[in-house]
Amino acid sequence: MTAHPRLSMNQATLRYAPLDEALRLVVAGGYEAIGLWREPVLEVGLAEAARRFADTGLRLSTYCRGGFFTMPEGPARRASIDDNRRGIEETATLAAAGAQGSTPVFVLVAGGLPDGSNDLPGARENVADAIAELASDAEAAGVTLAIEPLHPMYASDRAVVSTLKQALDLAEPFDPAVVGVTVDTFHIWWDPEVLPQIARAGASGRIATYQVCDWKTPLPEDVLLGRHYPGDGVIDFDSLTHAVGQTGYDRDIEVEIFNQAIWDAPWPEVVARTAASFDAVVAPHLATSVTA
Amino acid sequence: MTAHPRLSMNQATLRYAPLDEALRLVVAGGYEAIGLWREPVLEVGLAEAARRFADTGLRLSTYCRGGFFTMPEGPARRASIDDNRRGIEETATLAAAGAQGSTPVFVLVAGGLPDGSNDLPGARENVADAIAELASDAEAAGVTLAIEPLHPMYASDRAVVSTLKQALDLAEPFDPAVVGVTVDTFHIWWDPEVLPQIARAGASGRIATYQVCDWKTPLPEDVLLGRHYPGDGVIDFDSLTHAVGQTGYDRDIEVEIFNQAIWDAPWPEVVARTAASFDAVVAPHLATSVTA
Repeated sequence: MTAHPRLSMNQATLRYAPLDEALRLVVAGGYEAIGLWREPVLEVGLAEAARRFADTGLRLSTYCRGGFFTMPEGPARRASIDDNRRGIEETATLAAAGAQGSTPVFVLVAGGLPDGSNDLPGARENVADAIAELASDAEAAGVTLAIEPLHPMYASDRAVVSTLKQALDLAEPFDPAVVGVTVDTFHIWWDPEVLPQIARAGASGRIATYQVCDWKTPLPEDVLLGRHYPGDGVIDFDSLTHAVGQTGYDRDIEVEIFNQAIWDAPWPEVVARTAASFDAVVAPHLATSVTA
Repeated sequence: MTAHPRLSMNQATLRYAPLDEALRLVVAGGYEAIGLWREPVLEVGLAEAARRFADTGLRLSTYCRGGFFTMPEGPARRASIDDNRRGIEETATLAAAGAQGSTPVFVLVAGGLPDGSNDLPGARENVADAIAELASDAEAAGVTLAIEPLHPMYASDRAVVSTLKQALDLAEPFDPAVVGVTVDTFHIWWDPEVLPQIARAGASGRIATYQVCDWKTPLPEDVLLGRHYPGDGVIDFDSLTHAVGQTGYDRDIEVEIFNQAIWDAPWPEVVARTAASFDAVVAPHLATSVTA
């Protein structure tokens, strides 16, 4: 089987597959890249995971995920910062183990309002402080932190960073090689500012990863799981992919789907459908490579 | 019973109460104002509804609602524009029947993507065109159209207008007495730009109505029904109400709740709890009246 050379399987799409199985399936599906998740990697141990990953010949597109540092100073915050430092190191190790073209990108989800708090600006300040604290670690490790704005429906319980503009404002004080953003169609498609903000992200070299999946209503009971194959919903992948391409973004593009029905489907079918949906609605809008 | 003099009961909070019953309950609860909905009004007929409403001595704060005009030109769009014209006339009639201080505000919900379309910018242009078409009717009737940005989780199926900034940009070409915006805490609390955009709305005289209710997760299976009494969720009514007050907004403030459990509760209890929650978390942040 083959897959588009820029398609990367985000491991969350194969939520229940152990690491070995996910790697085997993705290779068998003809993919060249994967975005790994911490839990299945740490389940086998970092060193062993890096060895097995190196054997596949796949590129690493991202490592998911860190963040969750909106709480005020105290032991919980220190534990989160320490955990993020470990995540940065894991990212560097896995990217070094990946094939040429791997990108040491560590995706950051901010976290929601601290328990009992309604201080959204305060939580956002805590995010800015955490990024400032982690930037030197990321720089030393050669890792890019990719702040991910999440859809505003998650603002209270998962991510107080809700728009691409806000993520870019947070990234602005730092070297773009150290702090960038995650551009995920599901989270930002609705934003009236999305196209100028993608252009801004590109102009400042801050698109650390481009992730695609679709939006469809009604939302499922757990609104985290309302992500669909590209083309199964209402997102215009033409304009978004074109905008990302116009910035010169030429890295891997991940398909990341949280969806109970897709998680429960046979894994080889998911691998094949992901590649087919990417070919159908994303690939046609990628700039043609110049091979002069 | 008494209620805060600026509290208005949005009739949707008493979803299943017929018009007469809603009016009676709100008067009995000591309220001075109500935001009426079209369906219960038209159920008894406009002229009769206006007579009964006039008898209550209540002010009209808003009339809900029009809009739903994202479709391309054709019979469905003409039907929607005509229906909105009738809504404008109904607003004028009911505001004239209301007590002094009534505000002829017709709330507009844009509508979602047309069936089978993923052209969000196109749908938004259709909204702008519809408002341009209706503005002269509104002006002639002395009615203010209040464009309501809805939470981005409704962008595909209910409202392609998702932020206060976007609503203000749409309103900008028109006289603020003719086209303003609805500031509803549930829809905009998450927005990093909310405070400057409230200030902008106030500075241009475009806050046609301020509506309050709270946000809490997990969201219910029908995400339309996730609205709560002020104080039961995570919204900071202090900063938002203060920002609205700072603009000089001195009209009625509506509590509008869509929530199955609240709809199913005894109506007098809902009337009382609405007033109590308003007193507890909204009223303390209203500017003190100067009675020199």
